[in-house]
Amino acid sequence: MKSQEELLAIVEQAIVAGAWKREPQGLYEPIEYVLSLGGKRIRPCLTLMACNLFTDNLKEALKAGIALEVFHNFTLLHDDVMDNADTRRGYATVHKRWNINTAILSGDAMLIEAYKLITDVKSDRLSEILTIFNTTADEVCKGQQYDMEFESRTNVSIDEYMEMIRLKTAVLLAGSLKIGALIGGASEEQSQLLYNFGIYMGLAFQLQDDYLDAFGNPKVFGKAIGGDILCGKKCFPLLTALELANAQSRAKLNDFLSLDSKKNKEEKIKGVLEIYREMGIDKICAEKVRLYTEKAQKCLENLGLSAEKTDPLFKFSQSLSTRKK
Amino acid sequence: MKSQEELLAIVEQAIVAGAWKREPQGLYEPIEYVLSLGGKRIRPCLTLMACNLFTDNLKEALKAGIALEVFHNFTLLHDDVMDNADTRRGYATVHKRWNINTAILSGDAMLIEAYKLITDVKSDRLSEILTIFNTTADEVCKGQQYDMEFESRTNVSIDEYMEMIRLKTAVLLAGSLKIGALIGGASEEQSQLLYNFGIYMGLAFQLQDDYLDAFGNPKVFGKAIGGDILCGKKCFPLLTALELANAQSRAKLNDFLSLDSKKNKEEKIKGVLEIYREMGIDKICAEKVRLYTEKAQKCLENLGLSAEKTDPLFKFSQSLSTRKK
Repeated sequence: MKSQEELLAIVEQAIVAGAWKREPQGLYEPIEYVLSLGGKRIRPCLTLMACNLFTDNLKEALKAGIALEVFHNFTLLHDDVMDNADTRRGYATVHKRWNINTAILSGDAMLIEAYKLITDVKSDRLSEILTIFNTTADEVCKGQQYDMEFESRTNVSIDEYMEMIRLKTAVLLAGSLKIGALIGGASEEQSQLLYNFGIYMGLAFQLQDDYLDAFGNPKVFGKAIGGDILCGKKCFPLLTALELANAQSRAKLNDFLSLDSKKNKEEKIKGVLEIYREMGIDKICAEKVRLYTEKAQKCLENLGLSAEKTDPLFKFSQSLSTRKK
Repeated sequence: MKSQEELLAIVEQAIVAGAWKREPQGLYEPIEYVLSLGGKRIRPCLTLMACNLFTDNLKEALKAGIALEVFHNFTLLHDDVMDNADTRRGYATVHKRWNINTAILSGDAMLIEAYKLITDVKSDRLSEILTIFNTTADEVCKGQQYDMEFESRTNVSIDEYMEMIRLKTAVLLAGSLKIGALIGGASEEQSQLLYNFGIYMGLAFQLQDDYLDAFGNPKVFGKAIGGDILCGKKCFPLLTALELANAQSRAKLNDFLSLDSKKNKEEKIKGVLEIYREMGIDKICAEKVRLYTEKAQKCLENLGLSAEKTDPLFKFSQSLSTRKK
């Protein structure tokens, strides 16, 4: 069993070694740039960890993991254009550093590259692997579509939000795990349990994101608190507050939300957070994260494998849901 | 053997029957819209024709053909954003009818859909088919990148231009044919001959496009003559003229080319065309189309099949290179 750190090193090495110095440079340089910006490499690590539960031969799982990481970075590249984001991981986004056309076309080439890698996996279960990859890729697009639609909608329910983050975030973690499991030789039931583990962990991960954006410690969090409040994002804390508030609290909340995010930045964040805390939204959110993490870990227990084997995935789920940044 | 008309009907029927009415509507409606705008359906027809040379069972080739048509329309969708085109086949482009974000995301979903279709093809040569699909998709992106780069370059050679249209246009026709041939049961040599047939035909097709844009009959062509001249496109006629011109003609040509495309539209087109005709560019261009068509048809002859069998492809190549619109 390899530790998460060992697997991360393998992934990082494979990404750096990837032959991105291709012609035309104008197409591939942005791809190399995006992939070199770092990130947690969660998806390929999950693929390797899931595979490693069943075998020590990680060669094909590594290929699949890189495919999933390239796919993930393709979605970030195109999402950044759609969200008009200036920076990603502290660096200029591709459409800012180059231009929108480059971001579109290099993104397309990345998606094709992801398919090159995944279709090249040697496995007698390739057909099933490709079905998961295709379905997942399609679902991630749907998630992004819902996310964009929610921006202009005023009646988003918590259930709709949970479905959106399932599609946009959780299915790719789940797919990464299931593909690794299939390559490693898991049974149908085991690979489905690992898929479910990924879904629950993905939901916990995103809800922890929402939690930290509102209730994180600014000194540890690494970025300013209240970003979601300022851009009016229909995230879990806001949707929960709107659903649970009485008429008086809702009116007060809406008053603060309608403040100008530039002129009354501090007042807006402070006001909304105060209501959140009065209503106990921080506790509800933290409890939800704990619940999903518990559900995820239950899936691991049901795999029928030793605690020693599942330990890296157990620790991983623990670290994601207790992270402070 | 089915005629081109019969195959086209099969393709059209399959595209219309495609389940595009999916949720979220905001993601799939633009896909249905793009696919319903028509077009010549050249790629799926080629896949079916190539397959039909070897078998009457066209079921899997139809799936692959639709994958190639969906892929082609994905490239048109994203290219239209990059070229900021207002219309496509007489209708508003997706980014004009909806918006750029929709065009990006629905395009991404189309590319994934194309992969869903192609990875679902039942064939013991699926691995080879996927390699061709991947390579072709990657090459089409490269072609688009070169095409965009040429806009701001002043030293594009004819060879570079031919390589660009090979990548942007010809390889997809060639790939469509080869995939159909492999599904049908062609030998390695036969499928390579059909690939080469597609390359030559694709080059002839694009050069005929360039020819018609400059020398077509406006009454038959269906759109205004001189579009390439007005936007300064480094197409075959212009590059040939610049290469063959003596100092005097080149100076005259550059004078006309530097005229404002809005204010001096008529004068600009008339002036450039006059030089083209003086230099015999129309004949050079027509001769090049004839030559590539001949090379293409030579590939068909070398297949070792009866003239009756290759007749639909022969006629197809003939019709593409003699088309007036």
